[in-house]
Amino acid sequence: MSDEPCVVGVDFGTLSGRAVVVRVSDGAELASAEHVYAHAVLDRSLPDGTRLPPDWALQVPSDYIDVLRGAVPEAMTRAGVRPEQVIGIGTDFTACTVLPVLADGTPLCELPGLENRPHAYVKLWRHHAAQGQADRINALAAEMKEPWLERYGGKISSEWEFAKALQVLEEDPEIYRRTERWLEAADWIVWRLCGTYVRNACTAGYKGQYQDGTYPSRDYLAALNTDFADFVTDKLDHPIGQLGDPAGLLTAEAAAWTGLPEGITVCVGTVDAHVTAPAAVAVEPGQMVAIMGTSTCHVMSSDQHGAVPGMCGVVDGGILPGLWGYEAGQSGVGDIFGWFVRTGLPAEYAERAAAAGQTPHEYLTALAAGQKVGEHGLLALDWHSGNRSVLVDHDLSGLLIGQTLSTRPEDIYRALLEATAFGTRTIIDAFESAAVPVTELIIAGGLTKNALLMQIYADVTRRPLSIIGSTQGPALGAAMHAAVAAGAYPDIRAAAHAMGKVHRRVYLPDPQREVAYERLYSEYRVLHDYFGRGTNDVMHRLRRMRAEASV
Amino acid sequence: MSDEPCVVGVDFGTLSGRAVVVRVSDGAELASAEHVYAHAVLDRSLPDGTRLPPDWALQVPSDYIDVLRGAVPEAMTRAGVRPEQVIGIGTDFTACTVLPVLADGTPLCELPGLENRPHAYVKLWRHHAAQGQADRINALAAEMKEPWLERYGGKISSEWEFAKALQVLEEDPEIYRRTERWLEAADWIVWRLCGTYVRNACTAGYKGQYQDGTYPSRDYLAALNTDFADFVTDKLDHPIGQLGDPAGLLTAEAAAWTGLPEGITVCVGTVDAHVTAPAAVAVEPGQMVAIMGTSTCHVMSSDQHGAVPGMCGVVDGGILPGLWGYEAGQSGVGDIFGWFVRTGLPAEYAERAAAAGQTPHEYLTALAAGQKVGEHGLLALDWHSGNRSVLVDHDLSGLLIGQTLSTRPEDIYRALLEATAFGTRTIIDAFESAAVPVTELIIAGGLTKNALLMQIYADVTRRPLSIIGSTQGPALGAAMHAAVAAGAYPDIRAAAHAMGKVHRRVYLPDPQREVAYERLYSEYRVLHDYFGRGTNDVMHRLRRMRAEASV
Repeated sequence: MSDEPCVVGVDFGTLSGRAVVVRVSDGAELASAEHVYAHAVLDRSLPDGTRLPPDWALQVPSDYIDVLRGAVPEAMTRAGVRPEQVIGIGTDFTACTVLPVLADGTPLCELPGLENRPHAYVKLWRHHAAQGQADRINALAAEMKEPWLERYGGKISSEWEFAKALQVLEEDPEIYRRTERWLEAADWIVWRLCGTYVRNACTAGYKGQYQDGTYPSRDYLAALNTDFADFVTDKLDHPIGQLGDPAGLLTAEAAAWTGLPEGITVCVGTVDAHVTAPAAVAVEPGQMVAIMGTSTCHVMSSDQHGAVPGMCGVVDGGILPGLWGYEAGQSGVGDIFGWFVRTGLPAEYAERAAAAGQTPHEYLTALAAGQKVGEHGLLALDWHSGNRSVLVDHDLSGLLIGQTLSTRPEDIYRALLEATAFGTRTIIDAFESAAVPVTELIIAGGLTKNALLMQIYADVTRRPLSIIGSTQGPALGAAMHAAVAAGAYPDIRAAAHAMGKVHRRVYLPDPQREVAYERLYSEYRVLHDYFGRGTNDVMHRLRRMRAEASV
Repeated sequence: MSDEPCVVGVDFGTLSGRAVVVRVSDGAELASAEHVYAHAVLDRSLPDGTRLPPDWALQVPSDYIDVLRGAVPEAMTRAGVRPEQVIGIGTDFTACTVLPVLADGTPLCELPGLENRPHAYVKLWRHHAAQGQADRINALAAEMKEPWLERYGGKISSEWEFAKALQVLEEDPEIYRRTERWLEAADWIVWRLCGTYVRNACTAGYKGQYQDGTYPSRDYLAALNTDFADFVTDKLDHPIGQLGDPAGLLTAEAAAWTGLPEGITVCVGTVDAHVTAPAAVAVEPGQMVAIMGTSTCHVMSSDQHGAVPGMCGVVDGGILPGLWGYEAGQSGVGDIFGWFVRTGLPAEYAERAAAAGQTPHEYLTALAAGQKVGEHGLLALDWHSGNRSVLVDHDLSGLLIGQTLSTRPEDIYRALLEATAFGTRTIIDAFESAAVPVTELIIAGGLTKNALLMQIYADVTRRPLSIIGSTQGPALGAAMHAAVAAGAYPDIRAAAHAMGKVHRRVYLPDPQREVAYERLYSEYRVLHDYFGRGTNDVMHRLRRMRAEASV
């Protein structure tokens, strides 16, 4: 290997962390390594066996340190890069993933005597047990006309910082009292790397309701719960770091973990989805990046500020300093296709796929690919895992219409692929209707490998699709931020142009299919509003009956 | 065997005919035999290879004679009954199954030179290529306020006598011209048995629009097509025989076919579904019999005359002389469950069913049986094969709502079972709303063997279910009519009490499940009306797109 400067990006996902060693000059990914969290997700019990209620999802912070100890040195070895070549390290994290710590950053779950206290652990993004708190937060905010509410499409999620903290207060007041800092894991890992706590602008805005320099007011918090009145001042408020800024220098301890030189730059933390935007060279207003995997996250920067109904949030500098950063999402995408293959694939299909050396997904995709638009006669709503945008309602559910006695599995599979495309189209339309233009659609994530799916997205959105040029988008984005923090580039935009990777116009919409899909999409929108906006609340009532029957 | 008098009933189904030898005194079924039609259903080509368009379904009349030659002697041999014991023979047929014949009853398809003419053959009940004619018949009848229209729930089917005859006229005028009689196969087979053409009251009324002693008027027919003006007088009108009346005596030729004595009584023909009512001892007003198989037919006699919207028809004496006979139906029931098992059952389910020695239906039923009402969170519309009653719309399609990532095959299976129960409930409600009371629900047909399905029907309809005591309901009913025609009983009511078989109160509704199903049923009715009555015509539009894409 040459002596060229490199950066390390570390992506902390839901089940593992991945480190990538990247050349600063051109973003070449020299090597990567993965470390799986020993405790994965705690959703049934704590390590000591303490049982957890439904909808809980916790993690163990030491698992994150093990990624630094395992994956980083391994990636370095594979890359054949000498430590002295590395000028900085950057990280990205799932969010909102939060934990209670002491003033020195020690997680409460590591304190003697608190091992058996669920509220002392990290609450993973998909911890959904604070829905009651979120409902009250939303209702009271609407009632008190809190100004931040419209920045979140009119509703905040049970996944976020305030809802999760309020749950701690109300369910384990002692843990709440002993919490000196309530912080994002994205910031905790940076603190561990450089010894300095810097609160990143991305999670503060998207998950902590930090808008225009302020948090929800003391009066509002007191009205939620009198003991919650001082939550911001006591436990949350902290100086904000912008994305791409240095947070500090690598400590001796962290240098020992990673094998990297002490004193190199550590970048301010950020979020996996958002950091993928510059990795895909989406640095201009209106370039929307859809990160498509089990679910889809849509991120976009804009110079326009609009109240997009049902978006997840808009944050000043949330993705790129100096631009409004928008986030939206679909809660089920690849998960829905996986569910169908798991529960709806007949034996003969499984056998034929195996005989052809294909996965069931590849086999169904090949069968569905020959169809004309509308040929299967079906239409689906993609809400099997609820709807994150634009309806923000996780009690919605899936729908399939048009079945006849000649409907085949590949027909249903294609209808599900199409439904998720209609979901993305609905989000794009919501942005444009709110005068926030979407000028380009770039796709990242694991589902980019399904060419039929990509073509359907092009035809349904009536846009050429660009495709990210990396399978490690988040880690590449984190590395890119490290390069900026270390001074190799003046800003993220410049770094993205040098190090990011995108192929433009990979899938072009077909004029005939566009027109046919427009007809199906208009049908989708009618059902979307009928079932999703309360005209017929049958999905909620079915869910209630299901809950009652399951007692 | 003793020397007791017996009767023979022959049931002419879609793919085969079944003969049953029945003891007159108590209806004991001594033996049965089946003969499969050599030509089955001609839906792709004629026997000589002539291609047929889509939606055609023809049969070959000589196949019916082969049933008399094969199944009747075989059943007699198995029963060990001497021919001299047999006092009469009765038949039932699918309907509307019609054919063009000469004045002596010779089918046109048997005339030299007409073998390659599709319109010369028997049009099976499920020949659906006369939809254009049916649409015109309905539109013109509504416009001209034809009095018979309300007797058919406001719409006649493309399956019936006038639509099919008009199709012959308009597509093959020479065949139409050479048709001297246009008659039901139900009457043709009786003609072949006794040498006399008697038009039975059941098909004349339900399939031939014969009401209050008249047919649709010459003016109306002329307005449909001037060459159709004299259809009734030239080809259709004929003296009517009541159900259970003798049509004539067995000819020497038919005696030779069947091995039965020449000169025994041959009963007036009738229809498979309708004849099942007395077989299940449903001879009082308000006793509804649902014959449940691939589809469901509902038949009921009543002393009340009501215009039930969307019923198939009401005919004076159509089921029992002296009462109004009502017919309604669901076009897909067992067919829907079969479709799901064929296209939606994962390999591991198929394997576990096989390992347990169960059919997939038995396995899914066992899994679904443990659920509480509403536990699966799903709701379906049972229109995969269209809707016969009460919407009379074969362009509707299926729907499933409420899917989540934890929805399992047994959940969907149960939702489909329930949807068909809601369909039956809708039909019962339509009768009662039209002041035609339903006092008892009796189930016949192959699906009676599924205990979970039966219990769901009891819970959803909030009625105790009676179950027919025979697996050969139609043939038993035909035999019973023969006994009446031969004078062994004064009327069908008396024969039914002696020979019919029913078990009462086999499934009782559970008060808690009733209440829970009432909630689901009210959701079903909202979706039923939304998608079925034109509020959202998406099902029609999806079908149109499917047709366009399939060109």
